[in-house]
Amino acid sequence: MNGAQALIRTLVASGVEVCFANPGTSEMHFVAALDQVPEMRGVLGLFEGVVTGAADGYARMADKPAATLLHLGSGLGNGLANLHNARRARTPVVNIVGDQATYHKHYDAPLDSDIETVARNVSGWLRTSRSPDAVAADAAEAVAAAYGPPGQVATLILPADVSWLEAGGPAAPIATASRDAVDPATVAQVAAVLRSGEPAALLVGGSALREVPLVDASRVAATTGAKLLGETFPRRLERGAGLPAVDRLGYLAEFAAMQLDGVRHLVLVDTKSPVSFFAYPSKASDLVPEGCTVHVLAGPADDAAAALAGLADAVGAPADAAVVRAAERPDRPSGPLTAETLGRAIGAVLPALAIVADEGNTAGLFVSGFTAGAPRHDWLTLTGGAIGFGMPVATGAAVACPGRPVLSLEADGSAMYTLQSLWTQAREGLDVTTVVLANRSYAILNMELARVGAAAAQGVGPRAAAMFDLSQPALDFVSLSQGLGVPATRVETAEELTISLDKAFGEPGPHLIEAVLPTTL
Amino acid sequence: MNGAQALIRTLVASGVEVCFANPGTSEMHFVAALDQVPEMRGVLGLFEGVVTGAADGYARMADKPAATLLHLGSGLGNGLANLHNARRARTPVVNIVGDQATYHKHYDAPLDSDIETVARNVSGWLRTSRSPDAVAADAAEAVAAAYGPPGQVATLILPADVSWLEAGGPAAPIATASRDAVDPATVAQVAAVLRSGEPAALLVGGSALREVPLVDASRVAATTGAKLLGETFPRRLERGAGLPAVDRLGYLAEFAAMQLDGVRHLVLVDTKSPVSFFAYPSKASDLVPEGCTVHVLAGPADDAAAALAGLADAVGAPADAAVVRAAERPDRPSGPLTAETLGRAIGAVLPALAIVADEGNTAGLFVSGFTAGAPRHDWLTLTGGAIGFGMPVATGAAVACPGRPVLSLEADGSAMYTLQSLWTQAREGLDVTTVVLANRSYAILNMELARVGAAAAQGVGPRAAAMFDLSQPALDFVSLSQGLGVPATRVETAEELTISLDKAFGEPGPHLIEAVLPTTL
Repeated sequence: MNGAQALIRTLVASGVEVCFANPGTSEMHFVAALDQVPEMRGVLGLFEGVVTGAADGYARMADKPAATLLHLGSGLGNGLANLHNARRARTPVVNIVGDQATYHKHYDAPLDSDIETVARNVSGWLRTSRSPDAVAADAAEAVAAAYGPPGQVATLILPADVSWLEAGGPAAPIATASRDAVDPATVAQVAAVLRSGEPAALLVGGSALREVPLVDASRVAATTGAKLLGETFPRRLERGAGLPAVDRLGYLAEFAAMQLDGVRHLVLVDTKSPVSFFAYPSKASDLVPEGCTVHVLAGPADDAAAALAGLADAVGAPADAAVVRAAERPDRPSGPLTAETLGRAIGAVLPALAIVADEGNTAGLFVSGFTAGAPRHDWLTLTGGAIGFGMPVATGAAVACPGRPVLSLEADGSAMYTLQSLWTQAREGLDVTTVVLANRSYAILNMELARVGAAAAQGVGPRAAAMFDLSQPALDFVSLSQGLGVPATRVETAEELTISLDKAFGEPGPHLIEAVLPTTL
Repeated sequence: MNGAQALIRTLVASGVEVCFANPGTSEMHFVAALDQVPEMRGVLGLFEGVVTGAADGYARMADKPAATLLHLGSGLGNGLANLHNARRARTPVVNIVGDQATYHKHYDAPLDSDIETVARNVSGWLRTSRSPDAVAADAAEAVAAAYGPPGQVATLILPADVSWLEAGGPAAPIATASRDAVDPATVAQVAAVLRSGEPAALLVGGSALREVPLVDASRVAATTGAKLLGETFPRRLERGAGLPAVDRLGYLAEFAAMQLDGVRHLVLVDTKSPVSFFAYPSKASDLVPEGCTVHVLAGPADDAAAALAGLADAVGAPADAAVVRAAERPDRPSGPLTAETLGRAIGAVLPALAIVADEGNTAGLFVSGFTAGAPRHDWLTLTGGAIGFGMPVATGAAVACPGRPVLSLEADGSAMYTLQSLWTQAREGLDVTTVVLANRSYAILNMELARVGAAAAQGVGPRAAAMFDLSQPALDFVSLSQGLGVPATRVETAEELTISLDKAFGEPGPHLIEAVLPTTL
């Protein structure tokens, strides 16, 4: 058994069963070993951003890591943006990055670069495996490190000769660590604050956005009068009819300020204290209102679910106190397609147990609201702000949950970063319905230009405006999708959209719908 | 004048007239300033790999840097692979990477990451501009650093507030440094070696692959009997009828070994001593034959052209001794399209003064040979081995040389990394003819699987073979190209290819031809 086989067998023994891959020459022994270890499923991506984003999406839904297979520092570089998003999501990912053979490294061959330096930025755990005798144990450690808690990107750099030389055999899995119990005194302190009668809000994120902790958070909020808010960009929010209603903190600082206005105590549950996504001249970066005290109930490595259950007990919340969403859908809309009718259309037809990868950006503004009472579903968001996450994450989520429909909401600008995802969806027959929100512009930048004061100070000239314009030439997503093997259609009315959505959700395999929207919202 | 304007005016004053851009919120003041400084041309790319590769291609042809505009660490990450290629090419590039406002940085907002760490890998010069008073001088230094010699990637990180705050004004350009003169004693030593009668070879690269130094190298070779070889992957090779004939050292170590067999003295001219691209079990990494002494005539910062001129004098080479290619084209081929007939077709019709961006990989094997006697042209290659370089480099080269036809030779696998380039070509009306060599596979990996011994040891199983297969589903490049606004056609015979090439070269603006080739060569 060579190093590559020992590595893959260790991954499989540790529960890693899928490898999203874009290999090159230095990974050939790993690829060859896939035939020796059929328990590992190799899923090919045409570009590394697809591979890393798919691993993120897989782990968000499977609650366990996938592996990636990347080709040296440049392959890792191509995958870096979606690893950044995974890092922010605290998603467990096991990166395998091939490298030159150990004895070849000092020749500084053309593809050589300092892989560890590139990897460090996104990796909570990082190691170069130095010998075939070490690689299996390294792999077991990588998986354990990826699990955390909190979850993180673990990167194992794999020199080619470590793959091809004879190795001892696989290593035993390492038991994953438990989340830390929150000190009962902390729970009691937070309970006291919430019972004080002063205006308070619970800001819930990370691991606490799943059904059980959300129900407890909602019980606490209902009992104490505290406001229940979700973090702006959750990795996975369980929502819909029968689940607690949670408003997410707004992306726009102006909206977030309204949501937090008057709050004197902000209780953080597995999330960071809220800050503005970007700085804006003369606007605050810190979104915590003046005079508001921040309390941490649970950090990212803590057992937030147990802490919320304890908090619910401490405030004397009845078991049935949670405020859940009634089942409620908008009517099927008619007329021209706008951001609003698009939101209504999706709310009207979203299937039960859907997984929504939301990179709709500006044009997707209304979708979240109109799906709040739709049948239960999961909502995956752009945790790290590096666009191009949605289509890969949808791909990985579909691999993780073959029985569930996946809705990939994509803005046209963002779609062009990792469009290659469609090919993997076609190849694997994944049940993903992509809706491209085609407003023919980087609409968010038009808005941001004004918000940062650049437009006000100087006016928006034609050369600046051209930098947000995607209409010259117009991107034809039907053509692009068909070119990647995914059947596609273009819709320009709300009726057409609902009909196309029904059809796409009703058929197996991937579909794409280009929803043509006005350039201005 | 704010910092962004001072920066752009300094770039323009320093000779940087094009900015390839994929901006985000933190770059909005830079974008707004494009209307205040119309001397700077902004060229939008849909993905950062397009932006950085285009800057590389521009500089290869313009002999001066373009700027890039990238959005924080993730934008830089997406552009990293083509910056790696630029680093290996020693191409001057001025990277401008936006960052959070200085005072916002410590909040660790979602898009934050350690940009300097990511940038260090590819950047010979790196600085974060800390104040609007410093940014103009920083920009002037960045341009000077990019020029070198040798050329390099210079990265200036630009916090948002440094852009938007009031600045003093532009900085004066810094004179670019000259190349170092080679010690006459070194020239004399090399001359003595070449006159010794022992078998010798000149291996010429980098700055020495332009007409004047190549003529001198050819004079030296013809006079002394030394073999004249070019490096495997030049950033820019001037070639064709009337120019010196230079064989490039083979990518396959087996071929390179044959080319260097029996050589006792290897003289390096602005290139590294040859090593195998990857390591292979039981094969040598160092391609210098046993018993061969390596001599360095000129390093990357040296005036290699002057050194070759001096060497030609020192060996008493007659002025007209250079061996140049006769004008010679293959006949227009007919019959099925194969790697060979494809090479003949391109050789038959390549226009004068064409610029060829060569990422044809396995299927492009014959093109170089069949174009050797075509009208004079430039050949740009994959210097760093990070695939996805060709279409962006072709784009940048076309921006640099609006009067010249550009041929972008793309393998289908490689095309899928930075296909978004086509949209920029359409938007800017660039005269680029892309030929996609569609063999529906990562054919090079099939070959490498055998070369690294993975296939021999274990057999190629169906799961490994699937990792090289691009036929399930087949990529439809005509559809993809049209979706990006570039007219396209598919050809399956040699006749169709020559007709389509004639048409594409004869019309302004971009075109794409999908050349369907057998999966096995």
